[in-house]
Amino acid sequence: MNATPTAPAGAPDAQLRLTPGQRVQVRVPASTANLGPGFDCLGLALGIYDTIAATVTEGDVVVEATGEGAHDVPRDGTHLVARALIRGLQYAGISAPGLHLHCTNMIPHSRGLGSSAAAVVGGLVAASALMAAEGLRSALSETELVQLSGEFEGHPDNAAASVLGGPVVTWMDGEGGYFARRVHLHPAITATAFVPQTESSTAVTRGLLPHDVPRADAVFNLSRSALAVVALTSDPSCLFDATADRLHQDYRAPAMPQTHALVTELRSGGHAATVSGAGPSVVVLGTEPLGQAEAESAAAAGFTMTPLAIGEGVTVHT
Amino acid sequence: MNATPTAPAGAPDAQLRLTPGQRVQVRVPASTANLGPGFDCLGLALGIYDTIAATVTEGDVVVEATGEGAHDVPRDGTHLVARALIRGLQYAGISAPGLHLHCTNMIPHSRGLGSSAAAVVGGLVAASALMAAEGLRSALSETELVQLSGEFEGHPDNAAASVLGGPVVTWMDGEGGYFARRVHLHPAITATAFVPQTESSTAVTRGLLPHDVPRADAVFNLSRSALAVVALTSDPSCLFDATADRLHQDYRAPAMPQTHALVTELRSGGHAATVSGAGPSVVVLGTEPLGQAEAESAAAAGFTMTPLAIGEGVTVHT
Repeated sequence: MNATPTAPAGAPDAQLRLTPGQRVQVRVPASTANLGPGFDCLGLALGIYDTIAATVTEGDVVVEATGEGAHDVPRDGTHLVARALIRGLQYAGISAPGLHLHCTNMIPHSRGLGSSAAAVVGGLVAASALMAAEGLRSALSETELVQLSGEFEGHPDNAAASVLGGPVVTWMDGEGGYFARRVHLHPAITATAFVPQTESSTAVTRGLLPHDVPRADAVFNLSRSALAVVALTSDPSCLFDATADRLHQDYRAPAMPQTHALVTELRSGGHAATVSGAGPSVVVLGTEPLGQAEAESAAAAGFTMTPLAIGEGVTVHT
Repeated sequence: MNATPTAPAGAPDAQLRLTPGQRVQVRVPASTANLGPGFDCLGLALGIYDTIAATVTEGDVVVEATGEGAHDVPRDGTHLVARALIRGLQYAGISAPGLHLHCTNMIPHSRGLGSSAAAVVGGLVAASALMAAEGLRSALSETELVQLSGEFEGHPDNAAASVLGGPVVTWMDGEGGYFARRVHLHPAITATAFVPQTESSTAVTRGLLPHDVPRADAVFNLSRSALAVVALTSDPSCLFDATADRLHQDYRAPAMPQTHALVTELRSGGHAATVSGAGPSVVVLGTEPLGQAEAESAAAAGFTMTPLAIGEGVTVHT
């Protein structure tokens, strides 16, 4: 081991070490998860991207951030992107003497749009790209990225969407394994986000969910969850039915009444609206753009309506 | 109304009436339902077919049956095929002076292979074909057939598979509406049934299911239910994970220990085995034929292993 003043980033006993000056740039998409019935299992990447420029240095771990949430995040190795990057290196048995990260954040924080999952995936992919660029190891596979990011998040649907892009079906084996498959998106489907100024905490809203649920509600969501894959891949005419939920949205409604009211209003207008992740944003899937009426109604409730492209999976630019 | 000695079959106030001598033949497939995680929502038509020859007569409703269960079914208008046929006519506002049905049954009864759903669909389609053949009304649509057969069954997954063929995703709106979509089956997937001599009652096994379930188990099945559509349509490598269940099979295990043991044994061998419907049959989905070892092991437990083609939807031969 090299006796540097600060402990090297990555595996403490790593034989392999990144070279100062090595640099990569990663672009990682936002995501919506818990899509309608698909609690913890249906995610969709959205076309808002954070960018991370990671440079290996001789010094400490230093993080600069601009954009969304830039003033609320730590500037050292406890920054989520840095933690994920270091975890990625550690997983591969590689260390870095120091790191400089520049995060350009376009994904709103604490709005249910997967900013933390994007940070984790961005960090892991930066690690992967740095070690691959030096030829120390092949890049992490999508399977490894889904697993490592799922471990960070505790649920795989946001992170897998950021890894793979598009719509994803994810699952857990109950023994710490995280898995995902990207599915083909029907080309006519577009997404519209309604983003409020208020933030939400996933930890708080998750606490509102009961330990047991009526079997009838479970079966209700089972059928819609299967139908969601049909709707997303081949039959958008089912999107409205396929986004109905009885297992999470109503339980969390007391924590975000405006979100609940907006979903209810949009659905009563025939739109396939769901809470995005743990809220408070709302996502509508459909084949027709929403109109001025929906934008104004949402604005009155404090939400900004934004048509979004479907997100592409994380990419590396060296 | 025509004062015949017996009440006409069909709508009591019907203005339209079938002509004696009119005749149709219907072929309707078996099905497996509750496919793995997909309780009440994932069905698959299987290549075993019942045939129903229906003839309009001047007399009563008379049913002849040969084959499976032929000695256990009523021979009059209370026979399930006759009831469904009469319901189909009634729905369309049509009556028949009398009916003669000849049912040739190949689908084993009370084994979880959808024989009652096939009978209902066969009867409804016979009604549809008779009235269409006389030009009294267009044939019942698939939507109407799914709805009417769902009302008979109380759940749509078996009946919709018999109507549409192949794998189906079904759902209910909680207000008496039954819906289904057929999905494209990946061409490499085949089914193998393990059918015991013993029968099972869906009513009894359904009573074993609890009113409430752990949310974690619901989420487990949600993800597998979505994954099942991915596995069936595009990625058979997921079939094993996609057929895991925590919401119905274990609860029903005490009522059919041999079935439970066989599913457990097959799954421990890596096969995507599930209880078929409410049991006691077992179905394995896969891309490789099962071998002599599985056949012998199943035979020792009282099950006959039968490779099956995927079923085509109900057809009419006039």
